[in-house]
Amino acid sequence: MNIALLGFGTVGRGFYELLTERPLSLNICAVLARRPLEGLNCMVTSDFYKILNEADADIIVEAMGGLEPAHEYICAALRAKKHVVTANKQLMCAYYDELTALTRENGVSLRCTAAAGGGIPWLSSLARAASVDAIISVSGIMNGTSNYILDAMSRRSMDYAAALSDAQRLGYAEADPTADVCGLDTRRKLVLSTNIAYGVSISESDVPCFGIANITAEDMRFFEGNGLACRLIGHAERHFGTISAAVEPMLFGADAGEARVYECGNMMSLCAAHMGRQSFLGAGAGAYPTGSNVLADCRAIAEGCSAFYTDSFTRAQVDNSRAYQRYYIRKQGCAPVITAPLSVEQAHVMCRVEGFNGFMAAIAE
Amino acid sequence: MNIALLGFGTVGRGFYELLTERPLSLNICAVLARRPLEGLNCMVTSDFYKILNEADADIIVEAMGGLEPAHEYICAALRAKKHVVTANKQLMCAYYDELTALTRENGVSLRCTAAAGGGIPWLSSLARAASVDAIISVSGIMNGTSNYILDAMSRRSMDYAAALSDAQRLGYAEADPTADVCGLDTRRKLVLSTNIAYGVSISESDVPCFGIANITAEDMRFFEGNGLACRLIGHAERHFGTISAAVEPMLFGADAGEARVYECGNMMSLCAAHMGRQSFLGAGAGAYPTGSNVLADCRAIAEGCSAFYTDSFTRAQVDNSRAYQRYYIRKQGCAPVITAPLSVEQAHVMCRVEGFNGFMAAIAE
Repeated sequence: MNIALLGFGTVGRGFYELLTERPLSLNICAVLARRPLEGLNCMVTSDFYKILNEADADIIVEAMGGLEPAHEYICAALRAKKHVVTANKQLMCAYYDELTALTRENGVSLRCTAAAGGGIPWLSSLARAASVDAIISVSGIMNGTSNYILDAMSRRSMDYAAALSDAQRLGYAEADPTADVCGLDTRRKLVLSTNIAYGVSISESDVPCFGIANITAEDMRFFEGNGLACRLIGHAERHFGTISAAVEPMLFGADAGEARVYECGNMMSLCAAHMGRQSFLGAGAGAYPTGSNVLADCRAIAEGCSAFYTDSFTRAQVDNSRAYQRYYIRKQGCAPVITAPLSVEQAHVMCRVEGFNGFMAAIAE
Repeated sequence: MNIALLGFGTVGRGFYELLTERPLSLNICAVLARRPLEGLNCMVTSDFYKILNEADADIIVEAMGGLEPAHEYICAALRAKKHVVTANKQLMCAYYDELTALTRENGVSLRCTAAAGGGIPWLSSLARAASVDAIISVSGIMNGTSNYILDAMSRRSMDYAAALSDAQRLGYAEADPTADVCGLDTRRKLVLSTNIAYGVSISESDVPCFGIANITAEDMRFFEGNGLACRLIGHAERHFGTISAAVEPMLFGADAGEARVYECGNMMSLCAAHMGRQSFLGAGAGAYPTGSNVLADCRAIAEGCSAFYTDSFTRAQVDNSRAYQRYYIRKQGCAPVITAPLSVEQAHVMCRVEGFNGFMAAIAE
């Protein structure tokens, strides 16, 4: 099969190197790049429509990132009956309904396994489980940057600012770390996971999202003193047809698998009616893990994998009003409080009305 | 697609219930059972060839267990160009070359994801990784019974006999627990994993295999005193083209994921050149997890998944002579010794020549 690669940044270049390194019956016929590239044995152009019309590609791999023009190009590719593989979670969340509808209408395949979990075959395994079993919940550590910071604060006793700056120095955090530390990146991966788990379509903006930037060294000492580990968690659950979903810091006992996920690791879990709980651990980011997962999606398409991960796309509202958890709440200058069970909205309102500038975390059951 | 189900024991009945519970575009057209079954809306017979010739099945699901007549029936099904799904690890190991050759010759699909890891999508994820990346190692806790016993000995301070009898009382161990506690079950899962990871075919009998039956309460106290957890591990590695493989008890530090796998849990890991280390946790046995994974294989075939997990089947010798690990060795009546790095054969010979009736375990790096 012929592949056209859009974008030659970190993920695009990683993908190109992996594909040309091994004999895979997959061939790169064109690369879309802003600048000329030396030494590539295929069409290299900055004109996407030249690729679409002339390159005879079977699969379009989108590795540009961002919304436009990636969105325009993917839509055009699907309409031209090309299979599409992408790792672009922002795009997949923003245009989920449109992209999955175009995929169905044109009888092609759309895969985005690397969009949630980097190198981990999470979305493909989740879809496999959802195709035969009722998924009760999905949850996990879905952002390596925030996990690196929390781990450094815990095991190396750094404060938040020092841990963030360490992550930036090592290239694990962007200069603007907002999307990672405020939970937006986790929320996109959670939305994709929820949509595929339940055959629904939920909106990013409906999912409450809390980050880790307010955690202090004192919070960390309290957690450790109580045998608890703090992780940034995206979680969703379906209960009697109602879907609850949130992104928030969560506290785990020492025996929980999440407490043992260190540095940039990711750990996604599903709980299904018959299969029980399954967890998937690995590298959640990086050019080669992500590029490998993109390549595995291309291989799956070449081997006959068709369509999207699910064939159900019902619009669904997120409703957290009956999903209760206890919360750790520390207001500035006060001793921490462990609350009675609250919904995420109740916990948030309770903090906000009192001028909250401390930190709160759900407590895992 | 039409499915004929061979066998209506624990896994077969679980599979039947799961399939008839949900609308899946999969239909059971025949069941092979020794005795008449009430209330089944399909052909029920004790004559396999009646099913093969008259039932119009697309997929044969083998849930009989054992070698014969399951082997005879699967070969006949493949020759008749039926897809085959099985959870029978004993059969898959004993007849790997013959079954994969028949699959290729007849252009059908053969899937056995539930044969290693029960409900965990391990073999399917391993094959996905191996299709695009170089697998360095596979390893894991592949037997729930032995893990239950080790966990009970550690966290509940039971001795081996009491833990085994507890596992038998709860239905986690057979009346004859040999295959589980001596590592034979783990070895079969390891052989299948190794074959798929490296595109090879190795023999069960070439893989050294040590069990857990000699562990004493004193060993456990020594491990705990040194912050170590003991798990029965199957592991294989490829290094400069040489494949090493063994099944043996292994000691892990408290931070290792394996140390946190409790009760009947399974945890399989792969390490790949570009993807890094990935781990998969879940229920390694049970009618519903296993039945769900068998059903997911059927779904994958219905969605176009073809052939076997790999298209390479080179015969390979196992060579452990250059795979070194330190060992914990306790001879009866003596204080435990931690050895210098030894190959599994060296460690074994060292024990055997001195009339070994103590216990030894590799120490994970």
